[in-house]
Amino acid sequence: MLSQRLAEASFQNEVVGDAEAEIRAVSTLEDAKAGEISFLSNPKYNKQLETTKATAVIVGRDIEKRDGLSLIRCDDPYAAVTAAIILIHGHRKHPQWGPGQRAVIHPSAKIGTNANIGQGVTIAANVVIGDNATLYPGCYIADNVTIGHNVQLYPNVVIYDGCRLGHRVTIHANSVIGEDGLGYAKHEGQWLKIPQVGIAILGDDVEIGAGCTIDRATLGATVIGDGTKFSNLIAIGHGTKIGKHNMYVAQVGLAGSVNVGDNVTMAGQVGVAGHLEIGENVSIGAKAGVSKSLPPNMTALGAPAIDINQAKRQLLAAQKLPDLRQELKTLRRKIEELETRLGGL
Amino acid sequence: MLSQRLAEASFQNEVVGDAEAEIRAVSTLEDAKAGEISFLSNPKYNKQLETTKATAVIVGRDIEKRDGLSLIRCDDPYAAVTAAIILIHGHRKHPQWGPGQRAVIHPSAKIGTNANIGQGVTIAANVVIGDNATLYPGCYIADNVTIGHNVQLYPNVVIYDGCRLGHRVTIHANSVIGEDGLGYAKHEGQWLKIPQVGIAILGDDVEIGAGCTIDRATLGATVIGDGTKFSNLIAIGHGTKIGKHNMYVAQVGLAGSVNVGDNVTMAGQVGVAGHLEIGENVSIGAKAGVSKSLPPNMTALGAPAIDINQAKRQLLAAQKLPDLRQELKTLRRKIEELETRLGGL
Amino acid sequence: MLSQRLAEASFQNEVVGDAEAEIRAVSTLEDAKAGEISFLSNPKYNKQLETTKATAVIVGRDIEKRDGLSLIRCDDPYAAVTAAIILIHGHRKHPQWGPGQRAVIHPSAKIGTNANIGQGVTIAANVVIGDNATLYPGCYIADNVTIGHNVQLYPNVVIYDGCRLGHRVTIHANSVIGEDGLGYAKHEGQWLKIPQVGIAILGDDVEIGAGCTIDRATLGATVIGDGTKFSNLIAIGHGTKIGKHNMYVAQVGLAGSVNVGDNVTMAGQVGVAGHLEIGENVSIGAKAGVSKSLPPNMTALGAPAIDINQAKRQLLAAQKLPDLRQELKTLRRKIEELETRLGGL
Repeated sequence: MLSQRLAEASFQNEVVGDAEAEIRAVSTLEDAKAGEISFLSNPKYNKQLETTKATAVIVGRDIEKRDGLSLIRCDDPYAAVTAAIILIHGHRKHPQWGPGQRAVIHPSAKIGTNANIGQGVTIAANVVIGDNATLYPGCYIADNVTIGHNVQLYPNVVIYDGCRLGHRVTIHANSVIGEDGLGYAKHEGQWLKIPQVGIAILGDDVEIGAGCTIDRATLGATVIGDGTKFSNLIAIGHGTKIGKHNMYVAQVGLAGSVNVGDNVTMAGQVGVAGHLEIGENVSIGAKAGVSKSLPPNMTALGAPAIDINQAKRQLLAAQKLPDLRQELKTLRRKIEELETRLGGL
Repeated sequence: MLSQRLAEASFQNEVVGDAEAEIRAVSTLEDAKAGEISFLSNPKYNKQLETTKATAVIVGRDIEKRDGLSLIRCDDPYAAVTAAIILIHGHRKHPQWGPGQRAVIHPSAKIGTNANIGQGVTIAANVVIGDNATLYPGCYIADNVTIGHNVQLYPNVVIYDGCRLGHRVTIHANSVIGEDGLGYAKHEGQWLKIPQVGIAILGDDVEIGAGCTIDRATLGATVIGDGTKFSNLIAIGHGTKIGKHNMYVAQVGLAGSVNVGDNVTMAGQVGVAGHLEIGENVSIGAKAGVSKSLPPNMTALGAPAIDINQAKRQLLAAQKLPDLRQELKTLRRKIEELETRLGGL
Repeated sequence: MLSQRLAEASFQNEVVGDAEAEIRAVSTLEDAKAGEISFLSNPKYNKQLETTKATAVIVGRDIEKRDGLSLIRCDDPYAAVTAAIILIHGHRKHPQWGPGQRAVIHPSAKIGTNANIGQGVTIAANVVIGDNATLYPGCYIADNVTIGHNVQLYPNVVIYDGCRLGHRVTIHANSVIGEDGLGYAKHEGQWLKIPQVGIAILGDDVEIGAGCTIDRATLGATVIGDGTKFSNLIAIGHGTKIGKHNMYVAQVGLAGSVNVGDNVTMAGQVGVAGHLEIGENVSIGAKAGVSKSLPPNMTALGAPAIDINQAKRQLLAAQKLPDLRQELKTLRRKIEELETRLGGL
């Protein structure tokens, strides 16, 4: 039956075993119990197929039949299990706080239908919020902010003045959007603050993790493109513009005035210096330090970040460095021997 | 008298000088005034023993007598000064907010005796909290969270739905437990969100610093083992399981599905890639980038992280690299000379 | 007219073109429209002078006249455009919440005139706050905190007990000042918490970004000197003392007991190990890992951080490492040839 529902959700599949097995939950191969379904996508976990207690497993097309285990074979088990989780568990149901909560909403604010606003939320002057907004307790929405439909802001999210959020934006707890960037001019030995009069704009379907900080621009806008997803504790500098469908792992940091194309991925703790261009489809490995612009489609690694193959060659060479010094010593001795022998002739 | 109280607290010690000196406070060697006690544990600060104005100093067994300074000699001065700070200053006394604060507590929530809950706290449906809980203002405890006895949550801590905290857990301000991890499947060019239906579990005696983010698991649980201590701005990925008595310095980041053994320490800004195994008693140096599993008892350094001695050898070799290039040039010239001389024979 | 106001603000300048042009806003060269002024300070953007639609541009003394574009030439265009932004746009105007907000203020707290305090703010016992304070919603000010005049705390800022803030301090949303540092002593296999009885002190004119965490000292004080500016997600360890007019980019982390001089800059994701001395006027490049003390005026780079020129030489040598291995192979072969020829004699 799950097989059929997956097929209806456009995940073609073939059942090997009991197609009618009742499935109550999705679990990992290691933790699954009878009545649960699991998945196998990373070959690293192939062996767990032998020991899992799951009733069924979503697998790739090439996985062979096992006794007592129903397999749902499909082209992309990772995407299919996502669909299975949505079908079986669904997305988070938010508490319904209803009206009467102690929120402070400025009379000039315009809020759409079906708003679900928790206690301690502040919505300042001239804010516009679309329909079906969920604002958890403690969120602060400053003056002149514009927010689309179906937005979810988890507790204590802060949106500074004038920023704009698209439709279906999700921001996790304690993230901050549109704080002032590090803009100062040195004047007579002191740092003179440059008013940060720009804003930050988040496109449609953006999801931001917990504890992130996205600067407003000094002038103009910092932009996070449609469909881009951030993990936690990510810092984006003022005036940086990020394309669509990017994905950044935790603790990534981009300085100011960076331009990033579409479909870029950055692994954990990557740093990008200011004023660079990162082309579309670039992929940057964990902890890389990007100090030069990167052309489209490049896979980069290292600090400073270079082409991944070149980086791996350098790394290998560095690992052999102590051997190389030894070798050099040997060659030096041999040359001395040659010189002695030659001198003796 | 302090000597005696330390002995009662199982810190055997020997007083050299005035055992009856009255001590009002603990201070550093540099800042201490008369009537205060200090300590010497790091030999780097040995010289400050000459100049300190402290009345007494807790020191190791081998420190020699000084005129006008009482010494309390013991085996472990660092642990002993901890006991002295507890005896003299004690732990933080929390404000008592009492009932009547403007907290929003769902009628289905069960809260133990002696709860101390600040304004703006939200406790959602079916939450269970043990005795003697201190929840500072602005905390958000989502549906179905379970919390043990004697827990302290500082302001604006957010616990997502279904997560579980053990006894004597302390979480500092603005940390987030159980937010969604970075779980998406690429489907038709877009990132399809995978509902994160797992939870996060913190064991007994866990202390989490400020501004940390600990993802819930996609399926199953992210786990922080008993007695583990985190500094600030640490990010833990979904499904990662950390053992007991770990200690992590600020800005450490672990990706998802990592398994870490007991008694592991990680210095500042360490990063660990996903799906790795870190054995017990491993120690990882600052800024290391762990890209492969590490066996038990290893001390690792570098990016990629390797055995510390090997890392130091590579580092030394890298520092000599410019010399090495010079040397190679010299050898090349000598070989050319040899070739010339040999050709002349 | 802007020219004249800039001159009055001590930015001497010379207008080339229409000195009377009316200017409504400051914008980037790329985004500026007619009626707006822009600036050119980074030569990287020289070309945009050809295409900008700005009415006027603030430039250096050496930029040549262009048709249809008014130039305001001055010595330091970056500082001058800062003054222009202040003159035209001004600094942020905060909402006025007035009294009657639902804040919880302890009767023993002393708050100066003209306070602007949002809902959900908690001000605990014995707090002293100067005149003209702006405390956004959700801030928590613990017992015995002292705060100067003209301070701005954005939403959900948390100040732990006993900490002290100078005059004109600004702290952005969700930052935490004075949380406990990572202070534990290993005792019988467990981490025994060391009460952190010190405080954190922020000098006058300090600005702290969003999501930062500044530990209190174990004993004594963690200090951030006058005029120092932080970006976001910065972690400062317990007992660290930072001088005046420092500037740190996002995600910098300093361990405990570091002493930093005046006028030090650190780029993004720099890490500094504990107990080091960083001299005045030091500049540290992005992602550097500082493991030894640095003398005054040094520019450092790399992990471990060394003199920038030496770091660049090592980096260059590392890049040539694969070539060097090839060269070594060639030399080895030549030596073998020489040995053979010599043996044949």
